[in-house]
Amino acid sequence: MTTVEWRGGKVRFIDQTKLPLQEIYIETAEYRIVVDAIRALKIRGAPAIGVAAAFGVALAAASAVSAETVEVEARRAADLLGSTRPTAVNLFASLHRMRRVLDQHSSRPSAELRHALLDEALRIYKEDVDACVRIGEFGATLLERGSAVLTHCNAGALATAGAGTALSVITTAAREGKITRVYVDETRPLLQGARLTAWELVKAGIPVTLIADSSAGQVLRTGRVAAVITGADRIAANGDTANKIGTYPLAVLARRHGVPFYIAAPISTVDLQIATGEDIPIEERDGREITHWNGVRVAAEGVDVFAPAFDVTPHDLITAIVTDAGIHRPPYAVSLPGVRTTP
Amino acid sequence: MTTVEWRGGKVRFIDQTKLPLQEIYIETAEYRIVVDAIRALKIRGAPAIGVAAAFGVALAAASAVSAETVEVEARRAADLLGSTRPTAVNLFASLHRMRRVLDQHSSRPSAELRHALLDEALRIYKEDVDACVRIGEFGATLLERGSAVLTHCNAGALATAGAGTALSVITTAAREGKITRVYVDETRPLLQGARLTAWELVKAGIPVTLIADSSAGQVLRTGRVAAVITGADRIAANGDTANKIGTYPLAVLARRHGVPFYIAAPISTVDLQIATGEDIPIEERDGREITHWNGVRVAAEGVDVFAPAFDVTPHDLITAIVTDAGIHRPPYAVSLPGVRTTP
Repeated sequence: MTTVEWRGGKVRFIDQTKLPLQEIYIETAEYRIVVDAIRALKIRGAPAIGVAAAFGVALAAASAVSAETVEVEARRAADLLGSTRPTAVNLFASLHRMRRVLDQHSSRPSAELRHALLDEALRIYKEDVDACVRIGEFGATLLERGSAVLTHCNAGALATAGAGTALSVITTAAREGKITRVYVDETRPLLQGARLTAWELVKAGIPVTLIADSSAGQVLRTGRVAAVITGADRIAANGDTANKIGTYPLAVLARRHGVPFYIAAPISTVDLQIATGEDIPIEERDGREITHWNGVRVAAEGVDVFAPAFDVTPHDLITAIVTDAGIHRPPYAVSLPGVRTTP
Repeated sequence: MTTVEWRGGKVRFIDQTKLPLQEIYIETAEYRIVVDAIRALKIRGAPAIGVAAAFGVALAAASAVSAETVEVEARRAADLLGSTRPTAVNLFASLHRMRRVLDQHSSRPSAELRHALLDEALRIYKEDVDACVRIGEFGATLLERGSAVLTHCNAGALATAGAGTALSVITTAAREGKITRVYVDETRPLLQGARLTAWELVKAGIPVTLIADSSAGQVLRTGRVAAVITGADRIAANGDTANKIGTYPLAVLARRHGVPFYIAAPISTVDLQIATGEDIPIEERDGREITHWNGVRVAAEGVDVFAPAFDVTPHDLITAIVTDAGIHRPPYAVSLPGVRTTP
């Protein structure tokens, strides 16, 4: 299973809206298909979005109708890709790197520009694959043998180009014989936990207990899990972390019950430009994701909907942040920039 | 709209599994239909279940094939009705009263027994209707003008024979011009918030904002609501309260953000036989309520499911408990028995 990759001059990705019932891959040479796929959550997960966006820019350059339009097409693609989703910073970090390549090669022959863009995209891809491995190795040291853990949404292979973030920690620890069971929040409204995380863990042979999001309090209260671990969409300089809606309540409950709460993400998810979580833009999704099911109305007519896709967990509720650069402990304002290994 | 009533020798109830898309009433002279309706959540909500069970016993007596079998049929119905759902105490309180009538009229003519059973059932019905009014009046005094409130699951007319418990507080306060908006948790897995509470509030002309359960943290954190108010399925002598799964996390979040957390329930929901919430039996539902939607599998294959229907909110997180006997404040071990008006 490959979430998103470059293959034969095209971008190939799995359509995550069809999982787990259908395993459908889409191959495209058209960057607008990638734009739409990100917007429709066919490709989702902060790191995977970052990789897909880089490939999208490379695709736009590769498919430009003439040598003269390569740069303008690539820049247009970057703008469009940047408009898809506001919260995950990996998207903007990737596009920033692709634009830097555009700036540096602006006066060069178009073939060279195309080549440089694809090189950078493949570098972003490769860095993500490597980061997932290191996140898994660092994070697994936090877990003891005999641990059941709780996770939310999907921070697995499907959210990255590699083995995942929070799920890389869990699968790495499982290979070390440490994991007894993973409690998975179904994660309303789009059920990434029930559809994607459960699917990945079952494939990895790890026992899964699926729960409604609102059951996490009962799971934590009854001492069933040794740790909570989730991914992240953007981490502010002080450690405040935006992640899938419902992460913040989990962190509050974990604190109440003395259960460590870990965030796992590539260092590219850390946004040092942003001081605190207050400044992280929170995407609001279409209310139909709540009121409808497969296009059929479920909720009563006449209601308004508030559908934030993310919430912000304040840094003081986070026991540690695991990145590919290591395990960051509070105070994050010191530990996050201190060990940063990429510019 | 009538949730459950006695009409022309039959029990008539609205099928809540069909709402809000279809408004279907079922009329039956067969108590086993009532048993199945409670089990399948066609009739749900602690007070409504209590009323329906009383009617079920009266129905069994009325439809007994011979005068000799009236008592045994009624007792069999009481046993079966008592096996439907374990958590809501109103069911057992109702059946206790019906069995007391059976004991008292054991040697009397069958017509008299039938009459006494129906009388008691109608009394339980009437008491519930009256309790809802008083709960609304008492509870509305807790809310200021300009209040938005948050509720979970359905504690409305559909959960009672009358105007509801938490929703009676809200609709009474709304008639006094106090309510600006109600945030409604959709309430997974069976979406009683999205399907039932939203439907009732829209019909009452009160602005509704529907949210995923996991968004409640964001709603509370951003100061959008002045109070959280829910119903209850069983209240222990110390005030610990069992209610729909997800209530406990709401109470934890409300406390964190300094928002008052109220429980509203008829005094019959208080179970003085039970000292603390630890002793309240918590029903676990079929995992298919989480893994499937309308019979179609949604979740990945191969997962276990943990599907508690209720959780227990510890008394120290509850600002006040509103019953038909008044507003009970901590310490509940004193205030709950102290004002109890029914035996």
